[in-house]
Amino acid sequence: MTRKLYELLGADDRRFSPYCWRARMAVAHKGLDTGYVPMGFMEKDKIAFSGQKQVPVLVDGETTICDSWDIACYLDETYADAPTLFGGDVGRATAWFISCWMETEVFPSLLHLLVADIYTHARPEDQDYFRESREGRLGQRLEQCAEQAAGYLEPFRSSLQPARQVLKRQGFLCGTLPAYADYILFGTFQWARGVSPLAVIEKDDPLRDWLERMLDLYDGLGRSVTAYDY
Amino acid sequence: MTRKLYELLGADDRRFSPYCWRARMAVAHKGLDTGYVPMGFMEKDKIAFSGQKQVPVLVDGETTICDSWDIACYLDETYADAPTLFGGDVGRATAWFISCWMETEVFPSLLHLLVADIYTHARPEDQDYFRESREGRLGQRLEQCAEQAAGYLEPFRSSLQPARQVLKRQGFLCGTLPAYADYILFGTFQWARGVSPLAVIEKDDPLRDWLERMLDLYDGLGRSVTAYDY
Repeated sequence: MTRKLYELLGADDRRFSPYCWRARMAVAHKGLDTGYVPMGFMEKDKIAFSGQKQVPVLVDGETTICDSWDIACYLDETYADAPTLFGGDVGRATAWFISCWMETEVFPSLLHLLVADIYTHARPEDQDYFRESREGRLGQRLEQCAEQAAGYLEPFRSSLQPARQVLKRQGFLCGTLPAYADYILFGTFQWARGVSPLAVIEKDDPLRDWLERMLDLYDGLGRSVTAYDY
Repeated sequence: MTRKLYELLGADDRRFSPYCWRARMAVAHKGLDTGYVPMGFMEKDKIAFSGQKQVPVLVDGETTICDSWDIACYLDETYADAPTLFGGDVGRATAWFISCWMETEVFPSLLHLLVADIYTHARPEDQDYFRESREGRLGQRLEQCAEQAAGYLEPFRSSLQPARQVLKRQGFLCGTLPAYADYILFGTFQWARGVSPLAVIEKDDPLRDWLERMLDLYDGLGRSVTAYDY
């Protein structure tokens, strides 16, 4: 195996990084096999060779690519004959809009909703590091975050309204078939499913049908890891 | 001239419909000439032939197309050799996401911000109709809307955050060149510029550089109508 995807590892062999899921799905979309190299929050030495400290990192033969977006761009250019992730320059640019929307409109509430659960599902040896770094970033104790988490549920659900609106008229964000923008949104749900027993979307949310279809893709790749089912 | 674009007309020959601007820019993007047939809010008889009551309506030879989105799809399919509006199926699907985002996240606050100004800038003979229909839809008097308008400025500005984030890294929402998703956002600003003397974005908003570039396109098409400059 000359292809390796370095990704985040939690307790119980969990894989809940939304960015790593984008990379996982992008590799699968291209019909490529890959090995996975899991690493805990504190095992950054495993990717020291990449010159930076964040996963995902894809090693493809002699090439090392960091950052989920750059990995997707690399895959779409390098494996241009396989099904497209972006559908060309304009599609790549508008997928970047969806990535920015996720970052500015969806992740802030979801991070508050999940952060205490992420702590619980981190490997025990990573928990102190995770607590310290996230409490610094969020400016409050994880216990306070846990108390306030429920208040972020409605803002999170509401932030997904554009996606709901799109899926009224097409099966996937990218049209009749899934592509990279779908993996951006799917990674978000894999983050939630990986750490939170809470059903972050309601039973009758129209996003559920789409999520089931996403979980079915690539022989159920999204279901192949430990996660909460809801 | 066998091509005609029916569009909304305000007082002082103003053209402020965001949807009509999408169609205007899409036609120009394809390098096509067109005549414009302006109609006031109450002149729906002018488009009775289209079987529905809303502009834009494009008549292209023997073909009549209603709805700005359908017009863009029609143009991209029919004039496939001209510069693309969507860049293919995936790009069209993700542009639809941006259209849905505009509808669910941006327009609600902007409508509240502008509705009293739209009334002021409607043709005098359309004002009673406009007042009645919009007050019914919004559930309050236009005078109440005007009093509350300032409260919608920050939500509107904040809702544009994904676009700001995108433009940090690329010149247009669609990449290095403008395409349909840019016209979706541009129509939104033409709506504001058409009726409101208020600078809806701040002087140092990074969206301003993009807006200037958009106003320059197609020999300054966006500047060719009566509007507030800010």
